[in-house]
Amino acid sequence: VGAYGSGGLACSAEAARAADEHDELASARQLFALPDTMIYLDGNSLGALPVQVGPAVTDLVDRQWGQQLITSWNVNDWWRLPARVGDRIGRLIGAAAGQVMCGDSTSVQLFQALVAACRMRPGRGTILTDADGFPTDQYLADAVAELLELKVVRLHPGELAAHLSDDVAVVSLSQVDYRTGELFDAAAITEAVHAAGALMVWDLCHSAGALPVELDAIQADFAVGCSYKYLNGGPGAPGYIYIAARHLDAAVLPLTGWHGHRSPFQLSQRYSPAPSIERARIGTPPVLSMAALDAALTVFDQVSLAAIRRKSLALTDLVIEFARTRLAGFGVEVATPLPHDRRGSQVSLRMPAAYEVCQELIARGVIGDFREPDLLRLGFTPLYLSYADVYEAMDRLAEVLADGSYADGRYANRTVVT
Amino acid sequence: VGAYGSGGLACSAEAARAADEHDELASARQLFALPDTMIYLDGNSLGALPVQVGPAVTDLVDRQWGQQLITSWNVNDWWRLPARVGDRIGRLIGAAAGQVMCGDSTSVQLFQALVAACRMRPGRGTILTDADGFPTDQYLADAVAELLELKVVRLHPGELAAHLSDDVAVVSLSQVDYRTGELFDAAAITEAVHAAGALMVWDLCHSAGALPVELDAIQADFAVGCSYKYLNGGPGAPGYIYIAARHLDAAVLPLTGWHGHRSPFQLSQRYSPAPSIERARIGTPPVLSMAALDAALTVFDQVSLAAIRRKSLALTDLVIEFARTRLAGFGVEVATPLPHDRRGSQVSLRMPAAYEVCQELIARGVIGDFREPDLLRLGFTPLYLSYADVYEAMDRLAEVLADGSYADGRYANRTVVT
Repeated sequence: VGAYGSGGLACSAEAARAADEHDELASARQLFALPDTMIYLDGNSLGALPVQVGPAVTDLVDRQWGQQLITSWNVNDWWRLPARVGDRIGRLIGAAAGQVMCGDSTSVQLFQALVAACRMRPGRGTILTDADGFPTDQYLADAVAELLELKVVRLHPGELAAHLSDDVAVVSLSQVDYRTGELFDAAAITEAVHAAGALMVWDLCHSAGALPVELDAIQADFAVGCSYKYLNGGPGAPGYIYIAARHLDAAVLPLTGWHGHRSPFQLSQRYSPAPSIERARIGTPPVLSMAALDAALTVFDQVSLAAIRRKSLALTDLVIEFARTRLAGFGVEVATPLPHDRRGSQVSLRMPAAYEVCQELIARGVIGDFREPDLLRLGFTPLYLSYADVYEAMDRLAEVLADGSYADGRYANRTVVT
Repeated sequence: VGAYGSGGLACSAEAARAADEHDELASARQLFALPDTMIYLDGNSLGALPVQVGPAVTDLVDRQWGQQLITSWNVNDWWRLPARVGDRIGRLIGAAAGQVMCGDSTSVQLFQALVAACRMRPGRGTILTDADGFPTDQYLADAVAELLELKVVRLHPGELAAHLSDDVAVVSLSQVDYRTGELFDAAAITEAVHAAGALMVWDLCHSAGALPVELDAIQADFAVGCSYKYLNGGPGAPGYIYIAARHLDAAVLPLTGWHGHRSPFQLSQRYSPAPSIERARIGTPPVLSMAALDAALTVFDQVSLAAIRRKSLALTDLVIEFARTRLAGFGVEVATPLPHDRRGSQVSLRMPAAYEVCQELIARGVIGDFREPDLLRLGFTPLYLSYADVYEAMDRLAEVLADGSYADGRYANRTVVT
């Protein structure tokens, strides 16, 4: 048991260094290329570059595409790449093989999942979704409801019991709130949704790769996610969809590209979906981006999600302790739940002038991000962050707040930040 | 005027070499990396690798992602990449700036276009599509019809007049038949569709980059396409959508990802589409694949589509002349129309044992592809093919047919070919 994560932690640079000496994940840092001058607390927006990606992409471009061209669909097995990467992701989200397909964007996959799930509950007229959920999740619930003539009800996941009824077709939630970092009880929620006869669609964008997810064990129905956050697949890396094996025959997906056909190379006039997760293919997959993701995921062959979760909680414990003991005087509040079982892998700090503070922190080499209206959002990836890094980042935050120069107008013109 | 393309061409190796000496596109070959041992006639499936792609991808991975991480959305302007690449494509398909958005797959873009177009013609109940069209185009017409409670009628584009009525909402066609290489008259068809009060959706997969396309001039409504064929964007490179400027306010797209929102960074609960082509964004774009495409498109800064079209027709004239004079005895028929204005940039040869002949040709270094049931499909990219290459390819085809060893059972087990 290290200094953090066990309660009563000593919030000091010395204690952080001591914790690093016993860090079971310390060697994972060498699997990533990161600038030495930056403390990167934004792996929940874009994960860092795994060192295996560069050579894999070069091989894909120069040899597979450049030299072998169209024959690579066979000789380099591009055809099976989406399912192979899907299964790799499946191992990180508790899905047995043959239930996860990689491809397209999270938005597209969520559309697929929502339409398929709603169609499996004909006669029911309501989709429930999180009123504080990521915008795309809300927008797509509305879009699907319009196409299928349903209605959408927004709620907080804590109020779910009061909204479940025999009119609810589908409940669509993110497992971790993207703003506050609150972790929801996926097992209990899925069970309650099933008890009401509805189906559950989980958005794993902020949980996959950050903590153990057990889709099969909790009997999830559908799930989707991105691969550019904690899975480190690169900017705009492909999304994925999980369809529980028991639903594979019944899931009627709306985007009927030829790759999902039962016999794609017959090039027939009528669509007949593959009797497997292959039906979740759509068109030609983004091979280049997917090869990068495939290489990035090899990181997880060498570490356990349990170890990642242990260190993640220890790091966020440190941050929360620091904020409560040393930043409260600056009006900083911890927006992330304190109990471990309700916390993802981020800490969001509510504060006045959060935008300006975030910009000044970036100028001082600590990369976090701002979320409207007043949150400084800090993500923690145990694979490439040390305890000393995190302590140093918090120390710089304290300096920024004490200094106060962020408020002198230098950040008056807000620019695009994702 | 060279030896080919002007009628009465001399179908010989000498004439081909002579034509190469006057080839205005000869220098474009150096813009591509291609193995010297291969004659590549499958650029209509996967274009060859432009030499600028490798360095661009390495820069994207190592510097932009690896070193600048999340800040690249601003400092490397990833945010505007989809619209920037969209405009680059727009210049090749006759679209003024602000009407083309790059991203996702052709399938997804076609779904967007079909739904938006059908919604603009409420009360009309029919989608017309090509009975010989690419399978995805037919499958998606069916999928959209099911969602919007419409019906689909399949036809041959030549029969369009007989099917147009005030019940037709949308006509969806590929400009070039993917099997036969037949080129349809986009201007006349679009005009007829408009005269019936319907909207036109063009699939440009087999025309963009191969010949001049003039979307604005013909008053097209919507168009979609891929970028991995004649645009040379790489395997699974992103698709694109064209929405005519006059329709941008009325086009209600079904895939409402947050990137298409009027004010995406407000992260608001309700979707409100951007009042521009930005509404055609969906989720986070595949930055890696799109950066490769962006670099690939620089090839077209150095050549004109008119020159590409001239040489393309000369090359396909050569192939057709060769087939008619020297292959007819083997039961080979030209399935591609002979008139220039009805021919894309491919020649499809109908023959017995087309699958086996195609495989044997590949074994002898000439890469074409097979299309069910009896077509050898040869694509011609004037940017990296010489007249001598094409003559040599046809000569090897004649050898394969004369030899007959392809029929000895060596290709009895058919494998996946895309």
